[in-house]
Amino acid sequence: MANAFEFRILASDGAARRGELTTPHGVVQTPAFMPVGTQGAVKGMTERDLRENGAEIILANTYHLYLRPGDRLIARRGGLHRFIGWDGPILTDSGGFQAFSLGPRRRITEEGICFRSHLDGSEHLLTPELAADIQARLGSDIAMALDECLAHPATEDEARRSMERTLRWGRRSRQRLLWLQSQPSGAVLEDGRTPVRTNPGQAQFGIVQGSVYPDLREESARETQAIGFDAYAIGGLSVGESVDVMYETVSATAPLLAADRPRHLMGTGTPLDLIECVARGIDLFDCVMPTRNARNGQLFTGQGPLNVKNACYAEDDRPVDETCECYTCRHYSRAYLRHLFLAKEIGASTLNTLHNLHFYLDTLGRIREAIAFGSFESLRRAFHQSYSLRLLAHDADG
Amino acid sequence: MANAFEFRILASDGAARRGELTTPHGVVQTPAFMPVGTQGAVKGMTERDLRENGAEIILANTYHLYLRPGDRLIARRGGLHRFIGWDGPILTDSGGFQAFSLGPRRRITEEGICFRSHLDGSEHLLTPELAADIQARLGSDIAMALDECLAHPATEDEARRSMERTLRWGRRSRQRLLWLQSQPSGAVLEDGRTPVRTNPGQAQFGIVQGSVYPDLREESARETQAIGFDAYAIGGLSVGESVDVMYETVSATAPLLAADRPRHLMGTGTPLDLIECVARGIDLFDCVMPTRNARNGQLFTGQGPLNVKNACYAEDDRPVDETCECYTCRHYSRAYLRHLFLAKEIGASTLNTLHNLHFYLDTLGRIREAIAFGSFESLRRAFHQSYSLRLLAHDADG
Repeated sequence: MANAFEFRILASDGAARRGELTTPHGVVQTPAFMPVGTQGAVKGMTERDLRENGAEIILANTYHLYLRPGDRLIARRGGLHRFIGWDGPILTDSGGFQAFSLGPRRRITEEGICFRSHLDGSEHLLTPELAADIQARLGSDIAMALDECLAHPATEDEARRSMERTLRWGRRSRQRLLWLQSQPSGAVLEDGRTPVRTNPGQAQFGIVQGSVYPDLREESARETQAIGFDAYAIGGLSVGESVDVMYETVSATAPLLAADRPRHLMGTGTPLDLIECVARGIDLFDCVMPTRNARNGQLFTGQGPLNVKNACYAEDDRPVDETCECYTCRHYSRAYLRHLFLAKEIGASTLNTLHNLHFYLDTLGRIREAIAFGSFESLRRAFHQSYSLRLLAHDADG
Repeated sequence: MANAFEFRILASDGAARRGELTTPHGVVQTPAFMPVGTQGAVKGMTERDLRENGAEIILANTYHLYLRPGDRLIARRGGLHRFIGWDGPILTDSGGFQAFSLGPRRRITEEGICFRSHLDGSEHLLTPELAADIQARLGSDIAMALDECLAHPATEDEARRSMERTLRWGRRSRQRLLWLQSQPSGAVLEDGRTPVRTNPGQAQFGIVQGSVYPDLREESARETQAIGFDAYAIGGLSVGESVDVMYETVSATAPLLAADRPRHLMGTGTPLDLIECVARGIDLFDCVMPTRNARNGQLFTGQGPLNVKNACYAEDDRPVDETCECYTCRHYSRAYLRHLFLAKEIGASTLNTLHNLHFYLDTLGRIREAIAFGSFESLRRAFHQSYSLRLLAHDADG
C-alpha cells in the first residue's frame, strides 16, 4: 500500500503530458479535472452522476469537514470514502485556503492559522501538524501540505516571507505525515490518544508559492522538492492576477517540477485556462467554476459560456449545447432550464451542474486523446477559435 | 384520441380496486400516487429519477405555470410534456387551491377567483373558463374543473353555498372544455385569438365538495356526475379535519362515485392515509408530503417516519430503511444524509426525495399486488403494525 501512489507518463506532445496516476482507490487518467466536493459532496451531484460524467477523482475540503461533521466522526465511519459513498480517488486540500479566506476572523502566526469557525465562532489553531492529522483521519488518497495563501497583489518582500513560511510549514507537514506513517497500527501515544490513519497509502503533495515573482517561484520549487513530497502543486494563482501573468508563472514554474511526478495547478480555472495550462505541463486541476457557475446559471459550451437566464433563451427549444451528450442536453431545452432557474427549482442546480461537469470532464478527455495522437496543438487552436464564438456574438451573455 | 381516456378494473378486494388508466401519454397502474411537480418539476428530481422510482404519472400546478413561465409560452413549446421533458401522463390541477391559499391576496366572486400574483402583485381573474383554457394550452392528460376550496371548519350553510358554487363552476368548466374540443384545429375566434389545445385527448375531472357534511357530499357527488366529466375527484379534505373525519367522508363519498371511473382523492396524504383510502375505493392520490417532508429531513420507512436530523443518527451507518432498494438506501448512510441535511447541501433534498418517492411508489406497488392476489386486508394489517414501530419507539423522532 505504501507504494500505491504511482505516476506514469503514457505520451507527451510538446510540454503537454498524457499520464496515469495510480492511487489506493484507483487510477486517474491525466490531465484530469477534479470536481470540488467542499463538504463531502459535489453540490447537486450524486456519486452516480459523477461516475456517469466520467469523474475519476474528486476534491474535498479539510476545513469544512474538520468543522462539520468532524474528521474524528468520519474516521469512525471508516474514513471519507466510506462516509460519502465515493470509492474512487479523493484529494483533500489542507484547509489553509479556506481558513485564509475568513479574513478578519483569522490570524496567521508561525505556529499556524488561528481562526474562528464560520459555523459557531469557536476558535481553532490549524497547524501543519493538525492539517496532516485531519487528512490522515479523513483518509484521502492525496493530502496537501499546509501552505500560506497570499493576497494579490503582494510586494516581493511580502511574497518572500510568505513563501519561506510555506517552506517551513511544508517541512512540518511532511515530517508529521512520515511520523504518522511510522506509527504501528493501533499505537497509543503518551497522552492516551491514537494516531488515526484510515488510508495507509495516502500520498502528500507539497505546494509551490512565490506569487508572481519568478525568482521566488524558482526558489520555492527547488526547496519544496528538497523536502521530498510524493508530488507538487502550484498554489497562489487564480487569486486576482491577470490571465497572462498566471500563464507566465505556470510556464516558468511547471518545468521546474520533477517531470516524473504529476503537477497540480490549484484552483484553476476556465476551460481555456485548462487547455493553456495543459500546454504548459500541468496534469491535475481543481476548480469550483463549473459547479458554482452552474448554480448561477452560467453554462459552458464549445462555443463559449451561455447565461441561461438571458431572455433570449425563453423560447429556445435547443439543448444548451447541440453537440453535448450529457443527460441535460439529451433531455432538456434552454427554455426549460431558464424556467427552472428563474423559478429557483433545485433541478436547475442539478441539471446545470451535470452539464458543466460533463463539459469540463469531456474537454479533458478530448485533451488526453489529442496528446496521445500528437494533435494537441490543433485541438488547442480549434478550441480557442470555437470557444470565442459566443463571447464575440453575444457580449451580454457572460 | 378523443377516446384515449379509459379505465379498466382488473381486480378488486373488498372496496379496494386494482385498475389500469389509459391516457394519451400512456397507461397508469392504479391505485397510483402522483408526485407533485408544482412548477413543472418534481423538486430535486429529474425525469430519470422519477422513471427509476416507478412514477407513471405526475401532477403539475396550473396556477404556478400560468404565472411563470406562462401557459402560452408552454403551448408554443408544444405543450407541457415537451417543455418539461416528461412524456408520461400528467394531471394538472385547476389553480383554484393555490389561488385560494393566497389568503388576503384573493377575493372570490361568482365570476371566479380574483387574486394578486405572489410573484409580482399583478391582478388576475381565474374563471372556470380560464382554468380550462390554461389547461388546454398546457395539454395535460387530465385537467381539473375549477372548484372553490373551503377553509376548515365551515358551517353547513357556508359549505352548502360553496358546494353549490363549485357545481356552477363545474358546469362552466365542462362547457368550456367541450367548446374547446369542438373547435376545428387552427380556428380563429372573432377577437382574432385562437383556442389552443396541445393535447386533443385531454380528459377532465369534476370535483366533489361539501366539507364534512354527508348530505352535501351526497348532493355534490350526484350533481357533479350529472354534469358528465370523464372521472371524479374528492376535494376539500386533508385541510385540517381529523383523520377519522377524513376517512369517514371518503367512506361515505367514494361509493357514490361511478364504479367504472377512477376516483381521485386530492392532496392526501400519509402512507397510512393512502392504504386506508385505497381500502375505501380510491384509485388516484397526489400529495406534496413525500417531496416536501424529504426537504425537511423526514424520511418515510416501513417502520414509520424517521427524522434524519436527529442526533441519534450522527454515527448511524445503516441506510435509512434496511429493506429499501432505492438508490439512496443502496448507497448512503443515515450519518451521511444527516451531515448533508445539516450542511444544507442540495444533495440532501435530492437523496431524501428519491427515497421518499420510492417509498410511496413502492407502497402503492405492493398495494396493487395485494389487491390482485386478494391479500389486501393482510397487507393493510401488517403495514399498520410495522409502520407504528418507530412512532412508538422514538416518540421524539417525528
